[in-house]
Amino acid sequence: MNRNISSFESLLRESLKDSQLEEIYRILYGKKLRTLSITEPVYKPDPDSSFDIQGYVFEAKEEQLRHKRIVRVGLIQNKIAADTTASVEAQREAIYRKVQILIDCAGINGVNILCLQEVWPMPFAFCTREKSPWCEFAESAEDGPTTNFLKPLCQRHNMVIVSPILERDRNNVIWNTAVIIDNYGQVLGKHRKNHIPRVGDFNESTYYMEGDTGHPVFETEFGRIAVNICFGRHHPLNWMMFAINGAEIVFNPSATVKDLSEHLWRIEARNAAIANHYFTCAINRVGIEKYPHEFTSGDGQQAHTESGQFYGSSYVTAPDGTRTPGLSRLKDGLLIAELDLNLNRQVSDTWGFKMTQRLPMYVEALTKAIQSNYEPQIIKSNH
Amino acid sequence: MNRNISSFESLLRESLKDSQLEEIYRILYGKKLRTLSITEPVYKPDPDSSFDIQGYVFEAKEEQLRHKRIVRVGLIQNKIAADTTASVEAQREAIYRKVQILIDCAGINGVNILCLQEVWPMPFAFCTREKSPWCEFAESAEDGPTTNFLKPLCQRHNMVIVSPILERDRNNVIWNTAVIIDNYGQVLGKHRKNHIPRVGDFNESTYYMEGDTGHPVFETEFGRIAVNICFGRHHPLNWMMFAINGAEIVFNPSATVKDLSEHLWRIEARNAAIANHYFTCAINRVGIEKYPHEFTSGDGQQAHTESGQFYGSSYVTAPDGTRTPGLSRLKDGLLIAELDLNLNRQVSDTWGFKMTQRLPMYVEALTKAIQSNYEPQIIKSNH
Repeated sequence: MNRNISSFESLLRESLKDSQLEEIYRILYGKKLRTLSITEPVYKPDPDSSFDIQGYVFEAKEEQLRHKRIVRVGLIQNKIAADTTASVEAQREAIYRKVQILIDCAGINGVNILCLQEVWPMPFAFCTREKSPWCEFAESAEDGPTTNFLKPLCQRHNMVIVSPILERDRNNVIWNTAVIIDNYGQVLGKHRKNHIPRVGDFNESTYYMEGDTGHPVFETEFGRIAVNICFGRHHPLNWMMFAINGAEIVFNPSATVKDLSEHLWRIEARNAAIANHYFTCAINRVGIEKYPHEFTSGDGQQAHTESGQFYGSSYVTAPDGTRTPGLSRLKDGLLIAELDLNLNRQVSDTWGFKMTQRLPMYVEALTKAIQSNYEPQIIKSNH
Repeated sequence: MNRNISSFESLLRESLKDSQLEEIYRILYGKKLRTLSITEPVYKPDPDSSFDIQGYVFEAKEEQLRHKRIVRVGLIQNKIAADTTASVEAQREAIYRKVQILIDCAGINGVNILCLQEVWPMPFAFCTREKSPWCEFAESAEDGPTTNFLKPLCQRHNMVIVSPILERDRNNVIWNTAVIIDNYGQVLGKHRKNHIPRVGDFNESTYYMEGDTGHPVFETEFGRIAVNICFGRHHPLNWMMFAINGAEIVFNPSATVKDLSEHLWRIEARNAAIANHYFTCAINRVGIEKYPHEFTSGDGQQAHTESGQFYGSSYVTAPDGTRTPGLSRLKDGLLIAELDLNLNRQVSDTWGFKMTQRLPMYVEALTKAIQSNYEPQIIKSNH
């Protein structure tokens, strides 16, 4: 089948009766979420560049001693905006112009914390393994062009923005970094991707190494947030450390293609929300990117110039495992979710995974396991 | 909607065209699995007690230096078989008689390793919080009636059986335990449930405490197996330690009800297979159990006598994230899966989660995190 469907949910809606759809959704996604009424932007400079906007509300119970803690998060997924043979500056500017429309739309709709996709100001050209011109996109986290572009938008919309970029530090070390710019337009801090893929076309360790920033949680005016960048979503301990440090919402800006991972996409960030009693926001880029020169992955593929299909499908999961539908598989999009952060503790009180997790036992077990003379606990038959 | 559908997949098949179904399956389950032709048992003593049998094949690539390592696993889910007011012995015997038909069916179909559901020889009456008569079901792991019932079946079918029971040890300590009986009919070892729920109606810590057997892996003639009992599936570190000790297949015998967890069921065991490069086999009991006396969960519910609906839906996931459809939500069932254990290392070589997991960093971080004076890594704004 070669149909390229616009979304998983649209395919379900095409054929299922409402009553069937309801039962499918209950089993797949948990309880039904209320939709949020969205204000669309007044002008769209390019009529072809329509995008998918969806909004949902996660509700929590009333409590006696705490007020509700309502926050709106926004997730943006987008294609690149210029040919990859254009100049670095032209490519970046084209993305800025397009994404600003989505950022403004988030602002109009009261988004408090917005996250962009992985290395959003550039093509995801790491599959090429070419250093030039891609390394030229690397920039300062503190005062590079992208941070400087976003600062006034953060102020204008009173919005925290998580901006994943390719970072070049003062020693010319390159990192895959998320910059957190607060709602006053100041850089609150940054986090460098902890786990670097060497899979399929994406041997990203050609460009950057494992992050050295630990598992920071950023205390914003709207809630405590953390960023698990892309490949880190495959690592349960990465998710767990953000929880231990107090994260209430963990963003997972990603770039991953259909043939590699589409059947995994719906599992990992969602499992993390369940296991850690927090909200997760999984963002994937969208579109097929074409690069100037052929490259090979060595996995028996012909040399090729295209990235594979980034399939979008960004979604939000609550700590109780309910989730939103995904954004489009094919189009740019903005997903808005209104969260009541009180839900985290309510779910924790119900399920109690922190109480029952026996962390000291695992510290002891793992401490032994990393020794070179570790003897695994294996029970053998005497036959 | 009050329809009680027989399975998630049957609901999809009712309405979707083949081409739509194929795309839905690709996104949800990964690549399509070949079905296994099944020999059904010759006699069924009770025509009403039909059960769901399904079989699938997970294939791996040919390798140059290793032979294929084919193993057939069987997962059995079943309702209880007598009224819960019957004598302990009558209830147990009725379950034995019924489940033996399924075990023999697994044997006829060449199953090498079979796993039964959590505390399979009894009702899951822990929601009642009554000690009597339920504690009378507790028995010796080594030579209790259930182990003695299964030993000859293991020999007859040359089959390893994982038998989750309520265990009473010599000091009258009660445990939730999985007994591993090898294909010679000898007890290879046992594992006691590591994480005990206190959720909804199921405050199981009334009956048994956290297990003291660590994370054993059992080296059988057919592969290295481990058992993550029920609530342990919510704990990523539990899954991880079995991987560290070398498990190739991890069984997750469970008992969990619709309103509590049905939307989580498809996520957690599957995530574990992906994250740990091994096969997981998730088994849930089936049916609504009615107990003699009213009980309350204290969650604002009326006192009641029923368990909620155990929804079956047992399934197998491969390390590449592909999975089988689930067994029936309503009926007893046997799921057979033929695995090529070579797939584990092939997926590990492709994705490399063990290589990229940075375990020493996490040992250091977690060692600090469990100290009472731990300072979480929180970055605050100076506003």
